[in-house]
Amino acid sequence: MTMTGKLRAAIVGSTGYGGVELIRLLQSHPDIEITSVISSSSAGAPIEEGFPHLTGIVQRNLDGVDAAEIANRADVVFTATPSGVSAKLVPQLLEAGLKVVDLSGDFRLKDGAEYEQWYKHPAPPEAYLQQAVYGLCEVYGERAAGVDFISNPGCYPTATLLGLVPALEAGWIKPDSIIIDAKSGVSGAGRGTSLMVHFAEINENFKAYKINKHQHIPEIEQVLTDIAGEKVTVTFTTHLVPMTRGIMSTMYAGLTGEHSEQELVELYRKYYAGRPYVRVREPGVVPATKEVSGSNYCDIGFATDARTGRVTIVSVIDNIVKGAAGQAIQNLNLMMGWEETRGLGYTPVYP
Amino acid sequence: MTMTGKLRAAIVGSTGYGGVELIRLLQSHPDIEITSVISSSSAGAPIEEGFPHLTGIVQRNLDGVDAAEIANRADVVFTATPSGVSAKLVPQLLEAGLKVVDLSGDFRLKDGAEYEQWYKHPAPPEAYLQQAVYGLCEVYGERAAGVDFISNPGCYPTATLLGLVPALEAGWIKPDSIIIDAKSGVSGAGRGTSLMVHFAEINENFKAYKINKHQHIPEIEQVLTDIAGEKVTVTFTTHLVPMTRGIMSTMYAGLTGEHSEQELVELYRKYYAGRPYVRVREPGVVPATKEVSGSNYCDIGFATDARTGRVTIVSVIDNIVKGAAGQAIQNLNLMMGWEETRGLGYTPVYP
Amino acid sequence: MTMTGKLRAAIVGSTGYGGVELIRLLQSHPDIEITSVISSSSAGAPIEEGFPHLTGIVQRNLDGVDAAEIANRADVVFTATPSGVSAKLVPQLLEAGLKVVDLSGDFRLKDGAEYEQWYKHPAPPEAYLQQAVYGLCEVYGERAAGVDFISNPGCYPTATLLGLVPALEAGWIKPDSIIIDAKSGVSGAGRGTSLMVHFAEINENFKAYKINKHQHIPEIEQVLTDIAGEKVTVTFTTHLVPMTRGIMSTMYAGLTGEHSEQELVELYRKYYAGRPYVRVREPGVVPATKEVSGSNYCDIGFATDARTGRVTIVSVIDNIVKGAAGQAIQNLNLMMGWEETRGLGYTPVYP
Amino acid sequence: MTMTGKLRAAIVGSTGYGGVELIRLLQSHPDIEITSVISSSSAGAPIEEGFPHLTGIVQRNLDGVDAAEIANRADVVFTATPSGVSAKLVPQLLEAGLKVVDLSGDFRLKDGAEYEQWYKHPAPPEAYLQQAVYGLCEVYGERAAGVDFISNPGCYPTATLLGLVPALEAGWIKPDSIIIDAKSGVSGAGRGTSLMVHFAEINENFKAYKINKHQHIPEIEQVLTDIAGEKVTVTFTTHLVPMTRGIMSTMYAGLTGEHSEQELVELYRKYYAGRPYVRVREPGVVPATKEVSGSNYCDIGFATDARTGRVTIVSVIDNIVKGAAGQAIQNLNLMMGWEETRGLGYTPVYP
Repeated sequence: MTMTGKLRAAIVGSTGYGGVELIRLLQSHPDIEITSVISSSSAGAPIEEGFPHLTGIVQRNLDGVDAAEIANRADVVFTATPSGVSAKLVPQLLEAGLKVVDLSGDFRLKDGAEYEQWYKHPAPPEAYLQQAVYGLCEVYGERAAGVDFISNPGCYPTATLLGLVPALEAGWIKPDSIIIDAKSGVSGAGRGTSLMVHFAEINENFKAYKINKHQHIPEIEQVLTDIAGEKVTVTFTTHLVPMTRGIMSTMYAGLTGEHSEQELVELYRKYYAGRPYVRVREPGVVPATKEVSGSNYCDIGFATDARTGRVTIVSVIDNIVKGAAGQAIQNLNLMMGWEETRGLGYTPVYP
Repeated sequence: MTMTGKLRAAIVGSTGYGGVELIRLLQSHPDIEITSVISSSSAGAPIEEGFPHLTGIVQRNLDGVDAAEIANRADVVFTATPSGVSAKLVPQLLEAGLKVVDLSGDFRLKDGAEYEQWYKHPAPPEAYLQQAVYGLCEVYGERAAGVDFISNPGCYPTATLLGLVPALEAGWIKPDSIIIDAKSGVSGAGRGTSLMVHFAEINENFKAYKINKHQHIPEIEQVLTDIAGEKVTVTFTTHLVPMTRGIMSTMYAGLTGEHSEQELVELYRKYYAGRPYVRVREPGVVPATKEVSGSNYCDIGFATDARTGRVTIVSVIDNIVKGAAGQAIQNLNLMMGWEETRGLGYTPVYP
Repeated sequence: MTMTGKLRAAIVGSTGYGGVELIRLLQSHPDIEITSVISSSSAGAPIEEGFPHLTGIVQRNLDGVDAAEIANRADVVFTATPSGVSAKLVPQLLEAGLKVVDLSGDFRLKDGAEYEQWYKHPAPPEAYLQQAVYGLCEVYGERAAGVDFISNPGCYPTATLLGLVPALEAGWIKPDSIIIDAKSGVSGAGRGTSLMVHFAEINENFKAYKINKHQHIPEIEQVLTDIAGEKVTVTFTTHLVPMTRGIMSTMYAGLTGEHSEQELVELYRKYYAGRPYVRVREPGVVPATKEVSGSNYCDIGFATDARTGRVTIVSVIDNIVKGAAGQAIQNLNLMMGWEETRGLGYTPVYP
Repeated sequence: MTMTGKLRAAIVGSTGYGGVELIRLLQSHPDIEITSVISSSSAGAPIEEGFPHLTGIVQRNLDGVDAAEIANRADVVFTATPSGVSAKLVPQLLEAGLKVVDLSGDFRLKDGAEYEQWYKHPAPPEAYLQQAVYGLCEVYGERAAGVDFISNPGCYPTATLLGLVPALEAGWIKPDSIIIDAKSGVSGAGRGTSLMVHFAEINENFKAYKINKHQHIPEIEQVLTDIAGEKVTVTFTTHLVPMTRGIMSTMYAGLTGEHSEQELVELYRKYYAGRPYVRVREPGVVPATKEVSGSNYCDIGFATDARTGRVTIVSVIDNIVKGAAGQAIQNLNLMMGWEETRGLGYTPVYP
């Protein structure tokens, strides 16, 4: 705690897009103060050197990664690190008595073998995999209260699962019919440089990648299986959109009966009652990504088709907010027993 | 014919994106000379006024729309007009003895009642609906030879059908399982002004529209039904991508048996043998829209998924070339008995 | 005042980009409550119909434009109206006892004849032209305290003047040597539809417009003349950048003596001391537009050139925030005697 | 020569944007056949692996860099290599009897000391610096006939010099008053990866770079000095536009007398008479970059300002065509005594 009673927060991976978004959002959180921004690659340098937009806002040098030092400076740590790094670091942070919200993906799968198959790294120790609470707030939010360790959901799973869970739980869609066509802005690929994110290769271009091979597939299936009570397998395609922020997940499923758009809206509004960050649109209206940009909202809409007996579900988020930093703060709020919306009252930036 | 033996071509709708692309492409056609550029809205003005990129290339005033005058000036007419306009104009042009390639959509559906249901205009006279040859070159190309009237396929149907036909014809995919998730650049919406195409509304945004309601659905189903020999109904979503050119159609279908990506590649390469504008990619490789930009190519790739028994097919075109002006010229080449590639040898513009 | 002691604010022109940005920013202002959103064109409709990003945030129908009714509902009015409309409306609002911050441009020029020459509308009544305080906060901020009527500066003038005033006032640059090469995102053109803002015409394009003819020229010259104490005439070019938000003004001027980048930085930091929304960068570092996006900052940098004796000044703002809605709120804060930063603590959104 | 009498061309640097554009453009050149595509980094791989848009068009493996082998395979070499590489390679190629068009910049400056100051590499041998003909076609085209070695101009210098030379030569603008505000698409930075070209850093952003420090400054000044007959020094700023292709150079100069836009148009049209790739626009009309995209045109327009006595000149090119590959082919045409337009008849791609 700071002398003014604020929770002290450290951010590991402060020079990635997820980390720097945590910094932006936490500026307006009334109960949290950032006391350490950490980067293994740039330790020692002022953070505004690599992120001039923070000039005069965050005047702080980047710290190195050292669990003991972090424990001296902070009460809670956000680990926005590449997959594989958190697997080793998080256990040390937890042992040092810190609360942790991990954004890396390393603790999302309960089955270590499945992790190793999809992530191609050694899995973290079993005990930590089991300890981690999967922080999909609007579905598993009640599990977060009082815990020390949250594994923050992936960006694609967040948009996708919030779009599927109510209908699947209600038994309105056929579990073996789910096809997910997802599209993401380029910030989802991180700040690392590669030909794939070169402006001239992305701009005025649209491409699919990792078809049926994305590491978010087992994460999505783990939750859907939990909800359905039977093994669910999905077809999942990811595409890169020439934009910076935003994910749309367009989902297709066979309906088990005749359910109108109006009924779906009511079902979802009931499911998400009291959860302000999911906005279910009017029947026949589907959301666009810009309508949630810069904010923690997930917006959902439906189109049913009597001709084919299928429903099309459209779910959008800002991949860096609701798909990463925003949901991480929402999870911390739930861990601390604070109101879910604390520090997250950002209106979408439009246009 | 011109004195140098070239076919004289008129373009109705020269101030739309399809029309102006016909002008670009025809500059390099050795057997065609543009003798009239026509616009109902801007008649009398030099075309370079609205399209300064044509300065010094096409020095010609826009003509008005008059079938008799067109017949004096031209041998063939490309009608790149809004739907509803061609329905009335094309019969007059045909009666005046002209050859016509219609890009409007008014003559694609054989069933006038279905046309009226989806297009909300009165259908063209039945005789012309039946006369029109649906010009999907790589599927129905042999029907084009020697005819006077081609109905040029829509942009979404072109990308989608070239991606589905070989597998459907071979009986490798289940006809009732087809889901099409299509994405288009904004030029597909035409040059008319509206809030939907305002830069600030499209840029850094991704949106779905007309889910299961797009007028290209019956066009796609008409061909798939013809190929399958049974009624085929599809789920079809269209999205707007913040880019100018390009369509990707991502298609999902259940496989009827075990077919590897390698087998699919072979099946498609055999089907499209001798058709240079369809490029089937190596197994496991899917194309991006920019890889065909500015050219008449349709590129296709596959990903099969043993876990779900489905195949994902990715097909891309430049919506203004292969999806409109380029295929129209390809159709004219086939009508005239010329080589299919005449005047269309454009290498994609990359990056 | 509301019952909780908040100032009641109405926004005329709520369906334009400036108006909707006022709504976004005011959500976090602790002392202001929006009590009326007004639009002449869409009165009666819920605002979220045209701006779905406000779903669940602002649940309010648009009101019509009626000075008496506004006076019943509000204490202060932001008029984000097209030029020509405010000229007539603002006097009524002031007569009705309201405080007004006008974003339209109608009251920026003190000389009515000059207004009519550049704006091609009849000038507002002379008395109101004289009453209006030109609200360039960091230059004329002290004049705002306690007044009822502020004319909010234009977007280009804000970026340009904040970049030029300190050096001109210090006599370090030659008044007759100033050349301004400005670039703006497309939101600056407003939400109205036209071919000029069509996505396919702007995307992958860069264009100049209104060279030496932009109505912001006399506004810039009026202030520079005031500062220099002699008539200043500038060369001014505006360009459209394929992006939504942001203005960069790149300015060239002959130096009157040898002044290093270091000295310029010190001069500007001294001039803007205590004004948190101008950030003067380190010597040799110039800002990019994204570094202020979504925020009220104006960032400034310098490059001097010993070879030519000229200085290049780069100034960037978010045109809808510091160039419109943000500065309007900053002005209201100054009028009310509140802290300048009240409700404006937005960290730039990056990336 | 090939057996069909075509000139055999090799391209060194085929995996850069300049090299791959040479490949695109040369597909339609009737007198040239590409017989070797060369890359030091990717030798052995098929070129379509890194550039799938060439699938089925160029089926050729990349060769390594070896002057003797190149001389066996080719008559002419385009060296589209990074600066510093050509300095060493080109002398070998010339000694091997090849004709060379160098796109690297290594042979543009006649003064080796100046080269080393701006390029930070050792200069090429003096003899080759002197041998190189600076290939600004519309200014120095007559010098190209029959020579073996052309140094192809830089992208910024091409747009800038074509915009300034006629007025400077006529004595209509003051040599010491020239300010150049240039803007480029991102492809100008090449295909190498770096944070600077990361999509998320460029998109929805506008930035200035290398103010008064760009290596194209001495190249511009060398020509302007030659034309003016006195030392000319310029102020030169470069900016990065969130688009892939295109350069606009906005230039400011004091007029020596009263010259109307009409007179400037006439002066430039006379200067460029018979040179089809410079299009001088009507008085008061300035070009946008998209109006030349994909083509070899340079379009120029003017705005004079009686209030300041200055002229604003706007010049646009496609940086990869007229600013690199297109002008290189134009130079080869001139070297060979062919018509300047041979193989370059590309209509701009719009939209």
